[in-house]
Amino acid sequence: VVPRLLRPLHPADQADLIERLDGDDREVLIGAMGAAFDPEVLVYLDDTVREEILAHLDEAQIARFLSVLDSDDAVDLIGELDEDEQARILQAVPAKDRVILEQGLTFPESSAGRLMQREMVVVPAHWTVGQTIDFLRTVRDLPDDFYAIYVVDPAHRPVGELVLSHLLRSKRPVRVSDIMRKDFRRVPAAMDQEEVALLFRQYGLVAAPVVADDERLLGVITVDDVVDVIDEEAEEDLMRLGGVSEIDLYGTLWDTTRSRFPWLMVNLGTAIAASLVIGLFEATIQKVVALAVLMPIVASMGGNAGTQTLTVAVRALAMRDIDTRNAMRFIAKETLAGSLNGLAFAVVMAGASVLWFGDTRIAWIIAVAMVLNLLVAGLVGTLIPLGLQRVKVDPAVASGVFLTTVTDVVGFFVFLGLATLVLL
Amino acid sequence: VVPRLLRPLHPADQADLIERLDGDDREVLIGAMGAAFDPEVLVYLDDTVREEILAHLDEAQIARFLSVLDSDDAVDLIGELDEDEQARILQAVPAKDRVILEQGLTFPESSAGRLMQREMVVVPAHWTVGQTIDFLRTVRDLPDDFYAIYVVDPAHRPVGELVLSHLLRSKRPVRVSDIMRKDFRRVPAAMDQEEVALLFRQYGLVAAPVVADDERLLGVITVDDVVDVIDEEAEEDLMRLGGVSEIDLYGTLWDTTRSRFPWLMVNLGTAIAASLVIGLFEATIQKVVALAVLMPIVASMGGNAGTQTLTVAVRALAMRDIDTRNAMRFIAKETLAGSLNGLAFAVVMAGASVLWFGDTRIAWIIAVAMVLNLLVAGLVGTLIPLGLQRVKVDPAVASGVFLTTVTDVVGFFVFLGLATLVLL
Ligand SMILES: [Mg+2]
Ligand SMILES: [Mg+2]
Ligand SMILES: [Mg+2]
Ligand SMILES: [Mg+2]
Ligand SMILES: [Mg+2]
Ligand SMILES: [Mg+2]
Ligand SMILES: [Mg+2]
Ligand SMILES: [Mg+2]
Ligand SMILES: [Mg+2]
Ligand SMILES: [Mg+2]
Ligand SMILES: [Mg+2]
Ligand SMILES: [Mg+2]
Ligand SMILES: [Mg+2]
Repeated sequence: VVPRLLRPLHPADQADLIERLDGDDREVLIGAMGAAFDPEVLVYLDDTVREEILAHLDEAQIARFLSVLDSDDAVDLIGELDEDEQARILQAVPAKDRVILEQGLTFPESSAGRLMQREMVVVPAHWTVGQTIDFLRTVRDLPDDFYAIYVVDPAHRPVGELVLSHLLRSKRPVRVSDIMRKDFRRVPAAMDQEEVALLFRQYGLVAAPVVADDERLLGVITVDDVVDVIDEEAEEDLMRLGGVSEIDLYGTLWDTTRSRFPWLMVNLGTAIAASLVIGLFEATIQKVVALAVLMPIVASMGGNAGTQTLTVAVRALAMRDIDTRNAMRFIAKETLAGSLNGLAFAVVMAGASVLWFGDTRIAWIIAVAMVLNLLVAGLVGTLIPLGLQRVKVDPAVASGVFLTTVTDVVGFFVFLGLATLVLL
Repeated sequence: VVPRLLRPLHPADQADLIERLDGDDREVLIGAMGAAFDPEVLVYLDDTVREEILAHLDEAQIARFLSVLDSDDAVDLIGELDEDEQARILQAVPAKDRVILEQGLTFPESSAGRLMQREMVVVPAHWTVGQTIDFLRTVRDLPDDFYAIYVVDPAHRPVGELVLSHLLRSKRPVRVSDIMRKDFRRVPAAMDQEEVALLFRQYGLVAAPVVADDERLLGVITVDDVVDVIDEEAEEDLMRLGGVSEIDLYGTLWDTTRSRFPWLMVNLGTAIAASLVIGLFEATIQKVVALAVLMPIVASMGGNAGTQTLTVAVRALAMRDIDTRNAMRFIAKETLAGSLNGLAFAVVMAGASVLWFGDTRIAWIIAVAMVLNLLVAGLVGTLIPLGLQRVKVDPAVASGVFLTTVTDVVGFFVFLGLATLVLL
């Protein structure tokens, strides 16, 4: 029954339903669907679930699916298997498709070469609108749907982009070279997908031609696939800032537990570093236990203020909104904003401490520690991500640990250190 | 000189350059550009910078810009001004454009009605491909660029979507009703932009028709504007999780400081709550100062483990990957994953404590507290965002505070409470 209910749905919706099932039910369902299973569904499945399903299919079946899919989706699919499997499956694929898949696999993962599809429409510059339309009406082997036609020179280099709406609005005798856009953007095959996404976003593109080193046209990237990249990259930053390696909603308990462990281990290291700082002041705490009660506040406020700055910095770096021209201004502003809020909370906490412990010296100590720690939070909240970016480490992945280590250590050290000086 | 350098650039690149200038230079530049200033640049500017520039322009100028822009961009621009200004500017706009702007403003912010442009191509179902092409070739008042043509019935309800590549591939006598897509998705004008983005993403759309309550076709939403929405929504979640109200890279020092304050105030409240818990155990800490050294570790590990879970939950909720069918499975998995990592770190910290303080009772206490706090972290890391979503509060904005309050309070209470029972 279920297969019959699934078939009329869009492949993306079928994929969602399959994702919601648990592992055993999935296997049963795929088995029951048999030949009715639409390979397009694989394109929309979460990577974890897809891998699980591919593991249950035999090579001939996967090879058949690869021939049906668009070249970009086929390369993406086979690219996730290990090399042995790739080799075995490729042998089962017809020669024509195999060449395309093998070429696709030569481009690095997450590059424009991987993202592009080979199916596209190409015309020479000397053609007219009429010739182009007649060509489209007669040739069979064209992509289902396309957004632009590329005009190429005899060396197959793109020289113009023909927007379909412009083609439709021009009379038959007009030459395509007269209506093509010449200021279109070429994407080098080696460009990282994050750069591709920035390009589409910046210029509101719907499609872009991908070229080889020698400027030859290789394929076309379409906006629907760039939307996926934008989602992936945003998710990556969000996950990394949250200390998660990837969204693992469909992962097993064991995989999820293991993947969370390393980040918690790193955090344990920084927590122990902070504890060592506290350990330096055991004698002071023994004499004034109120310090133990208050000390987490300064550290926590520093961590939060720093995280605010860090979050803005990581996003702005990802969107290329910070460069050498405005980095200094950003650092200065964040440090000042941290200090000003530090001042505000110094007043609040000094008041609270007097009410709570009736001790103005403790009030002064927490006030000074608060200002200093929030100043440091603003400063390192900018310097850490900018520094990591400069040494080509993803600021999203490592900034958080460094930041809270600094704000914890500074927070505890200044607060307990001042207390030792003043109170003992 | 600068205006002459700017003019050949794409408006999006001009916007980036203007954003990089500081306030005074911006004013000078816009003044110097005068009539050469391209209104399209406003479309690409950061909201803060755009507001600043609009404040320097007079109403007649803004009205002129509004007439030049696409209707969606014009409504977006005027929508950000206050109502008095809107009224004054609308009076300076020609009647035909004014009606469109006024209608656009009646839709709620962040709705499909705001996102759509009115400029589109519409044909009746009885037309042929030839008639459609002739129409496109002769009529002047068409959008510059469009991705689909909508086929409407006599009541102006969309009955089909004509993909341009299909139109181009069909012979002139073919009826558009025979080649149009009938399974296209209509977007109600009231739909939230976040839902619109999910629709485009799910089905890989490039354009979608927007309809009124009575199914009449109102306008079309294009993918370039949906890409902006996707970026906005992802940024919003990232910022909210980081405790920032919006990305304020271009805001003044004062605005930035003020906007960061409320979240820090909330955090101060939770930090004080944690301190009150510590305060309950002052007598215990006085006797065993090692507890003050170790107690931040349990709280910190709980906060981090909970944040991992929370991050996955917030993203999955935003992408509609969690619903009632898999919520229980998700909660159970995260709670177990937290507990298992709690066990692992209980062993690690028990060992470390014995080495550090040579006391097996402290080792047992920290181990038990670690397991319990990481179990709680996994549980509340899922329950809080799911609960907030159910009561229609954005899980991204409020989950973090609740979570760390719980993990701090539980961490300190269990650790110090056990210590009081066992050590005193
Ligand atoms: Mg899906
Ligand atoms: Mg993939
Ligand atoms: Mg594709
Ligand atoms: Mg795709
Ligand atoms: Mg990346
Ligand atoms: Mg990234
Ligand atoms: Mg920009
Ligand atoms: Mg526009
Ligand atoms: Mg806006
Ligand atoms: Mg638009
Ligand atoms: Mg736009
Ligand atoms: Mg929203
Ligand atoms: Mg949201």
